[in-house]
Amino acid sequence: MNLSRLCVHTITTKPLSIEEAAKCYSRENIRGITVWRDALEGRNIRATGKMLREEGLEIVSLCRGGFFPHLTAAGRKDAIDDNLKAIEEAVALGAPMIVLVCGAAKGQSLETSREQIREGIAAIEPYAKAAGIRLAIEPLHPMYADTRSAINTLAQANDMAEAFASPWVGVAVDVYHLWWDPALQQEIERCGKHLFAFHICDWRIPTRDILLDRALMGEGCIPVAQIREWVEGTGFNGFHEVEIFSTEYWSGDQQLFLQKIKHAYLHHS
Amino acid sequence: MNLSRLCVHTITTKPLSIEEAAKCYSRENIRGITVWRDALEGRNIRATGKMLREEGLEIVSLCRGGFFPHLTAAGRKDAIDDNLKAIEEAVALGAPMIVLVCGAAKGQSLETSREQIREGIAAIEPYAKAAGIRLAIEPLHPMYADTRSAINTLAQANDMAEAFASPWVGVAVDVYHLWWDPALQQEIERCGKHLFAFHICDWRIPTRDILLDRALMGEGCIPVAQIREWVEGTGFNGFHEVEIFSTEYWSGDQQLFLQKIKHAYLHHS
Repeated sequence: MNLSRLCVHTITTKPLSIEEAAKCYSRENIRGITVWRDALEGRNIRATGKMLREEGLEIVSLCRGGFFPHLTAAGRKDAIDDNLKAIEEAVALGAPMIVLVCGAAKGQSLETSREQIREGIAAIEPYAKAAGIRLAIEPLHPMYADTRSAINTLAQANDMAEAFASPWVGVAVDVYHLWWDPALQQEIERCGKHLFAFHICDWRIPTRDILLDRALMGEGCIPVAQIREWVEGTGFNGFHEVEIFSTEYWSGDQQLFLQKIKHAYLHHS
Repeated sequence: MNLSRLCVHTITTKPLSIEEAAKCYSRENIRGITVWRDALEGRNIRATGKMLREEGLEIVSLCRGGFFPHLTAAGRKDAIDDNLKAIEEAVALGAPMIVLVCGAAKGQSLETSREQIREGIAAIEPYAKAAGIRLAIEPLHPMYADTRSAINTLAQANDMAEAFASPWVGVAVDVYHLWWDPALQQEIERCGKHLFAFHICDWRIPTRDILLDRALMGEGCIPVAQIREWVEGTGFNGFHEVEIFSTEYWSGDQQLFLQKIKHAYLHHS
């Protein structure tokens, strides 16, 4: 392992502005950045993309589109419009891919939400293709099936990606969401060329918060290196993206946190 | 829906002693009780079973056995011994079934834990058979794969139950653990006669604690009645067991909570 394929998500260092993040990542020789849309608020997006590249950073993804399911048709149309805006933002930023957190709507069945996800991706795929932006369907852990995603296994994401049969629609594999799945190895093998993104962190024992207690690689129980080998077995040679939501890490010094991320990446990924 | 098949787990009313629970359940015309082993501590188990029956309660299950995986052979042997003790306790109590929370050991792979679970059940099955006690493998939500169970889908539990091909080994379906699974309906249909137990509660939005924030039926997003129909479609005609771990509900009046349980059961199950 070396640092050449290490990417950090801006949300991982949430206390930093994107300008601060760019400088801090660059100082640590981190070469990849995935930009969360909230980090772009109030910025000129094109200029921000240029700034990141001038700091020596490669923009891996824009995070995140999706959230297609809604109880009303108006809500679903707004969601599609927002995803089209995300495609424009990705073009302006110079990001080649958008990660889709697909969504789930309280008050309707998961199957209805899943159908609305299919419809949403179908609506935006032609625009993504025209813009040259890849869409990565990210299955989320089943504990997020209530409101964040009705796509909860890699098998479901693969089914959906295969049904689109578009080079612009693939999947994102996040070890945090998928590590428990007895079908994980076979479903990663099944991905082939539509494995677009690989996200890493660890599962803390005990997990103190359902959303904001992700751990550094090596601190928990996820066999990150094993899963990385399966991912690379598909031919994937993209970045390894560190995506950590952590009240604990966000409360500390972020430059020091980046150094810990590098150490964890080199020794436990 | 009527109350004839309503069962409450002693853990659901954790602040009550088992003697208090028996009186409170009986006062509400609740006819089924599943006894957690901690509720029996310091009691004569045979006398406690008699007391429960005298209160008009049917003992549905003893909860819980399992926790087979351990890093050491000595740890695994202790686990098997404890499960044999649970079988003796079930006989003494007059409970016809033990629910197995299968376990997972930090420091080894889920696959290794799964193999140790198979070995553990194989070791105790002859004793369960001889004692006339059924063993119900309960798949737990994937968010408990770190330390509580390496069996996280009904498909896995069905695979295991089918491999044993014993009338004494089946599965427990708990809506809280399984509701998100896109294969749930087909896996329930697959259960057939080895669907031994049905546990209900609801998934609170937002879930504030990974362990102790279960909701009453109707308060969350689980389609409990839909899942009950699938369960009954297999021919299952056992109790509907309310199993709720909730810091919030435990802090209130337990008789009032039992009335809320009855209302939720009659209107949202």
